[in-house]
Amino acid sequence: MQAMPPETLFAPVIENEVSVGRIVLVCEHASNHIPAQWGNLGLNADQRRAHIAWDPGAFGLARGLARRLGAVLIHAPVSRLVYDCNRAPDMPGAMPARSEVHDIPGNAAISPDERLRRTRSVYLPFHDGLHGLIMRRIALGLRPVVITIHSFTPVYFGKTRRVEFGVIHDADPTLARAILKAAQETSLVTELNQPYSADDDVTHTLRVIATPYCLPNAMLEVRNDLIATQEAEEAMAETLTPVLNMGLIEIQRQVKAG
Amino acid sequence: MQAMPPETLFAPVIENEVSVGRIVLVCEHASNHIPAQWGNLGLNADQRRAHIAWDPGAFGLARGLARRLGAVLIHAPVSRLVYDCNRAPDMPGAMPARSEVHDIPGNAAISPDERLRRTRSVYLPFHDGLHGLIMRRIALGLRPVVITIHSFTPVYFGKTRRVEFGVIHDADPTLARAILKAAQETSLVTELNQPYSADDDVTHTLRVIATPYCLPNAMLEVRNDLIATQEAEEAMAETLTPVLNMGLIEIQRQVKAG
Repeated sequence: MQAMPPETLFAPVIENEVSVGRIVLVCEHASNHIPAQWGNLGLNADQRRAHIAWDPGAFGLARGLARRLGAVLIHAPVSRLVYDCNRAPDMPGAMPARSEVHDIPGNAAISPDERLRRTRSVYLPFHDGLHGLIMRRIALGLRPVVITIHSFTPVYFGKTRRVEFGVIHDADPTLARAILKAAQETSLVTELNQPYSADDDVTHTLRVIATPYCLPNAMLEVRNDLIATQEAEEAMAETLTPVLNMGLIEIQRQVKAG
Repeated sequence: MQAMPPETLFAPVIENEVSVGRIVLVCEHASNHIPAQWGNLGLNADQRRAHIAWDPGAFGLARGLARRLGAVLIHAPVSRLVYDCNRAPDMPGAMPARSEVHDIPGNAAISPDERLRRTRSVYLPFHDGLHGLIMRRIALGLRPVVITIHSFTPVYFGKTRRVEFGVIHDADPTLARAILKAAQETSLVTELNQPYSADDDVTHTLRVIATPYCLPNAMLEVRNDLIATQEAEEAMAETLTPVLNMGLIEIQRQVKAG
């Protein structure tokens, strides 16, 4: 294994770390930014703005939720086409050669050295930052609750998706079920483990940072046509804030009762 | 949450990272060193040399194994009485106020700030170092196999332990079972999930770094009276080297057959 030249490290951004609330919001797909060293990965401007490059609306929604909930927010500053921080370095989706119906030319033939470079530049800083954030809060007795914020495309492989709000769990379904129940109070078409589930390997962040530490956790997926403007992001944050609060209250009630 | 003053970071030591072998040996309890800032934690010299402070013999054994197996070795440089790197920051054993029959006066009343300081100084550097090591090897396609090396005291709470070699697994028992089978070729009294098991919360490192990444993994426990001198450490490394090699070959055979 050769020593590599120094690399740019794309550290995650942490907002509102002073909060003493339990909820930590994580947005792995907040940005479609492709740093200059990776050119445009062979994609046109439309493709670089599409859902394959990021989760449109997820960051605005996460910020709106963080502000209303008094939650911490941590988000990745680089497009998931460079490195998808919700994937381990050996998963095909980490640096995908194809995403939905799009070939990604810049990812067609990634050497082991380039795979290492992207892992060191993007994945490791993100997860070290997230790990440090969560461990500091555990050490202080703040009992973190980890919620990842995602969006999904309304049409996937030509098929229309009816679900509007998906709540996904990893090994422990407790928080996801509590959020699902609270979401029945809204008009959103809500489903458990849709449009993806842990079997699709989409819960990597939860598996790494929440499950081993027995932290309550869930992954939220909002259909991106519902958060396509800043006003819509804010409105969705307004809708989901009581849902997450009720979910948190419910799991705290269960712990006390249990 | 207040900003803390700069702290000393006790980074783990990585040996033989140039190896392209699959096995990564981890020794969380390699050292009984108590850095000056923690004084002597209120313990006498005998207590600071005892198994409560570290796993006597484990580091020498791990080094002997690393040399013979061509494995990477990563070890923590600080006593587990300051911070036990095989525990999360909220586990009682992370900074124990009592260990076996000994009170640890320096750990009797740890404030949240002191808990944070030790987490940042010892636990986070260890796990960031381990995480980086494993992720770099995954990125390069080296398919790491994680084996943690521990020792245990022959007499615990006054009771004599007959087991000499314990093989412990977390969620995936595959490698542990393969090592257990290979150990039948030795004269060691070998048992699965003894003297501890995952239910005793002793598999934290495996849970954090191996299970979420689907890496084959096991925790090895050797009775410390069998590795009480350098010669004994070397002899045990000589005995266990073919056991680990056979275990690795067996899981690779199962993958091919499966």
